[in-house]
Amino acid sequence: MKRIVLVASFLGAFTAFAQHQNPENAKMKPEMTEFWDPEVAVITPAESNSNAPSDAIVLFDGTTEGLAQNWTNNKGEAPGWVVADNCATVTKGTGGLKTKMTFEDFQLHIEWRTPAVVDTASKSQGRGNSGIFLQERYELQVLDNYGNRTYRNGQAGSFYKQHPPLVNVCKKPGEWQTYDVIYTAPRFKADSTLFSPARATVLQNGVLVQNNVQLSGPTEYIGIPKYKFHGPAGIALQDHGNPVSYRNIWLRKL
Amino acid sequence: MKRIVLVASFLGAFTAFAQHQNPENAKMKPEMTEFWDPEVAVITPAESNSNAPSDAIVLFDGTTEGLAQNWTNNKGEAPGWVVADNCATVTKGTGGLKTKMTFEDFQLHIEWRTPAVVDTASKSQGRGNSGIFLQERYELQVLDNYGNRTYRNGQAGSFYKQHPPLVNVCKKPGEWQTYDVIYTAPRFKADSTLFSPARATVLQNGVLVQNNVQLSGPTEYIGIPKYKFHGPAGIALQDHGNPVSYRNIWLRKL
Amino acid sequence: MKRIVLVASFLGAFTAFAQHQNPENAKMKPEMTEFWDPEVAVITPAESNSNAPSDAIVLFDGTTEGLAQNWTNNKGEAPGWVVADNCATVTKGTGGLKTKMTFEDFQLHIEWRTPAVVDTASKSQGRGNSGIFLQERYELQVLDNYGNRTYRNGQAGSFYKQHPPLVNVCKKPGEWQTYDVIYTAPRFKADSTLFSPARATVLQNGVLVQNNVQLSGPTEYIGIPKYKFHGPAGIALQDHGNPVSYRNIWLRKL
Amino acid sequence: MKRIVLVASFLGAFTAFAQHQNPENAKMKPEMTEFWDPEVAVITPAESNSNAPSDAIVLFDGTTEGLAQNWTNNKGEAPGWVVADNCATVTKGTGGLKTKMTFEDFQLHIEWRTPAVVDTASKSQGRGNSGIFLQERYELQVLDNYGNRTYRNGQAGSFYKQHPPLVNVCKKPGEWQTYDVIYTAPRFKADSTLFSPARATVLQNGVLVQNNVQLSGPTEYIGIPKYKFHGPAGIALQDHGNPVSYRNIWLRKL
Repeated sequence: MKRIVLVASFLGAFTAFAQHQNPENAKMKPEMTEFWDPEVAVITPAESNSNAPSDAIVLFDGTTEGLAQNWTNNKGEAPGWVVADNCATVTKGTGGLKTKMTFEDFQLHIEWRTPAVVDTASKSQGRGNSGIFLQERYELQVLDNYGNRTYRNGQAGSFYKQHPPLVNVCKKPGEWQTYDVIYTAPRFKADSTLFSPARATVLQNGVLVQNNVQLSGPTEYIGIPKYKFHGPAGIALQDHGNPVSYRNIWLRKL
Repeated sequence: MKRIVLVASFLGAFTAFAQHQNPENAKMKPEMTEFWDPEVAVITPAESNSNAPSDAIVLFDGTTEGLAQNWTNNKGEAPGWVVADNCATVTKGTGGLKTKMTFEDFQLHIEWRTPAVVDTASKSQGRGNSGIFLQERYELQVLDNYGNRTYRNGQAGSFYKQHPPLVNVCKKPGEWQTYDVIYTAPRFKADSTLFSPARATVLQNGVLVQNNVQLSGPTEYIGIPKYKFHGPAGIALQDHGNPVSYRNIWLRKL
Repeated sequence: MKRIVLVASFLGAFTAFAQHQNPENAKMKPEMTEFWDPEVAVITPAESNSNAPSDAIVLFDGTTEGLAQNWTNNKGEAPGWVVADNCATVTKGTGGLKTKMTFEDFQLHIEWRTPAVVDTASKSQGRGNSGIFLQERYELQVLDNYGNRTYRNGQAGSFYKQHPPLVNVCKKPGEWQTYDVIYTAPRFKADSTLFSPARATVLQNGVLVQNNVQLSGPTEYIGIPKYKFHGPAGIALQDHGNPVSYRNIWLRKL
Repeated sequence: MKRIVLVASFLGAFTAFAQHQNPENAKMKPEMTEFWDPEVAVITPAESNSNAPSDAIVLFDGTTEGLAQNWTNNKGEAPGWVVADNCATVTKGTGGLKTKMTFEDFQLHIEWRTPAVVDTASKSQGRGNSGIFLQERYELQVLDNYGNRTYRNGQAGSFYKQHPPLVNVCKKPGEWQTYDVIYTAPRFKADSTLFSPARATVLQNGVLVQNNVQLSGPTEYIGIPKYKFHGPAGIALQDHGNPVSYRNIWLRKL
């Protein structure tokens, strides 16, 4: 903005703001608070957020080759998950997946789908269960919670057993859902104790479900989380036995 | 997740985490960290983020009636901006717009477009300039910065004169761009001094441009910002003299 | 400071700092960043921190009258604790104490002493146990931990079952110890959910034992803490059955 | 605490807290939230905070040898300041002092005295001016502000030109004053941009003057501060031309 037009526009709101300034402050020029260097890096956005902007790392592009290039199973071998229709599906017994690359702070986009055919004999955690482990430790839950209640801190959009989602914005089983995650890694001191905890903001299907929450440590199924020193680490996808699918995974280092 | 499969899957990453627990901690049961109540509210996402999820307030639906229902000009009168093709366009001399409703914390989606025909005689702040004032005070800059350099803390995606965007992810003039904003209002103490500053996270065209930044006060064109007590306040759109257009504006109270 | 002498003094450290400034920034004058109003309130410090500065509320001055004036027992009646030698001592069976006044953010000074004669048959939590409940809910533990080990998150200087102290800086039983506490109350939203958690910094005997820690909810003896809306509240002292003494209690509202 | 006595004592405040727990949560045992390892380090406090606790580094013990051991002038040579009566006094023209050791996070105790004989011809910044530079960059102002007004963000207890003190708790010229500082160093990312800003809490003469403030960059006499990457750094004392004295300087690494 320049104030020229604005002063005319929003007199009520803006005239009060100058009162704290002494005469010398008032003599400042606009240019004194304008900073030009360094120039902000220019990147190109994608058509939609399913697609990666120009500075992103495409972690999974929908091909078997792409999956093998960036991911291993938990034994460090080639992933055992089936790739079809541009997505990779949990293939029971082949174990979870983990990226070869490791990360600290990032913006992550990932799409997931729970099975269209619901096993109605299963409920709560038994339906469409998987999970995305940020830095291999902090689980953002993936679950079919469409008309399927579970404990609030274990449902889709939760940081498992730490933070319930702000709302349940799940789509129907068989429909693709999105997570957009802004993640800040924990930092540790020289003696390996915690300096600052991990933080995350998550949008599910475009709706805020985690608002800059602070994680209390690695995800624990039993007991109380506690931080333990670690460095950069990968993104891991859980094999929980249900054929959950993933696609369009991209990440921007922050 | 349940740990059953996971233990098999990610032994390396997870076995270490139990070591801090004394024998009694280890006897905890999974159910002891599962919280069911209150149930998380269920809402329905939209097809795309241009559309509002079920719990959002649609601030502008593309119609003249919709604009008049939710907005006024800065004199409290009906908005003078032209509505056409589902968007509202700054109409020079009619002043800025402001919502009738007021807000504290929110998630805001808004789309904007700078003029397709570029006035090449203008540059820097002179090209496609407008702005979105959160709570009528904190300006998220709107500007044509496609091939048009300006000071880094004044370009599109900046909190004007406070925080430059992390990247310049602008689209071409004449193309629609999106802002998705997660905003936390400042809080004040009983004596009107600041308790906690405003904070915001912004995605421009799906790309993170502001990562939980802390605002240092209301936007100032000249001088150094300083907080001043205020309560809930509206969203304001600036008339900076350029025919910038807006559409698909929705907001969810947080 | 003025830079005049400094520039000569610390050239190495300081000359680099001007490089981000464009020519206009460099033309700023020192006066432009000098703010005079409002004048900072003048108060008078005490001789030592056992004594209250001029703007403090003296919550306990060592007299029976002073205790009765500012405190009640948990039934709202006059305190049952014995006052002698300028201190008040937990008198078993009379219950805890609570201030009549309520507070939000504050600086608190308080002195405490565990019994000089140690019941060697008792150990861990059994020795010299009491506690200071900030806003009646958040317990800063008082315990005889001189040569008496207990669980780290339950010892003197801990926020009970939430944050162990950084060091064990306890004096011998029978010696007076000090806590200097800087406390920020939690804030809640209009719907009674948490906006920002309580935070505290604590010096024990002049040594930092809690460094701006974030409390996870009211103190729980069993289970996991969870915030519940509350407004301003008092300081409470626990009757845990041991004759722990208190003196020189003053508080400054922040 | 144990709940046994407490439940009887504070029924009103505490009974409500269990309501969020499901039946399984309620079956937790107290021991499940008690953590014993690692044992908290035991240290010995000093008689008063003028003296160092057992784990502190004594940076100045009042002797010429002690000063020469830990400090240099700004040319890396032996300090030129006069040591007498257990204190070191700024000796005009000899330049500032800087510790040989470097630090990140710390608790610092330092005592200072402005000249007993006031040069009444001087006022504002001209009277008893010196400064303590944390990590050689972030100035905690030292000034005679007893009956001597200056700009609020430049007086004793301020972080110079960034944060005015909460109160003016200055003693008379010629009297010893204390600063107790809790300092968290800024952290930087691998690309040298800021990860988290420096933070500090300061007690002057036992009274809170800075409450966990966030510094916006190295102290600037002219213009707007901006962070620049640095690692561990020393404590520096400013030679501003006035014979300000220092004593009892100790620091604990955090």
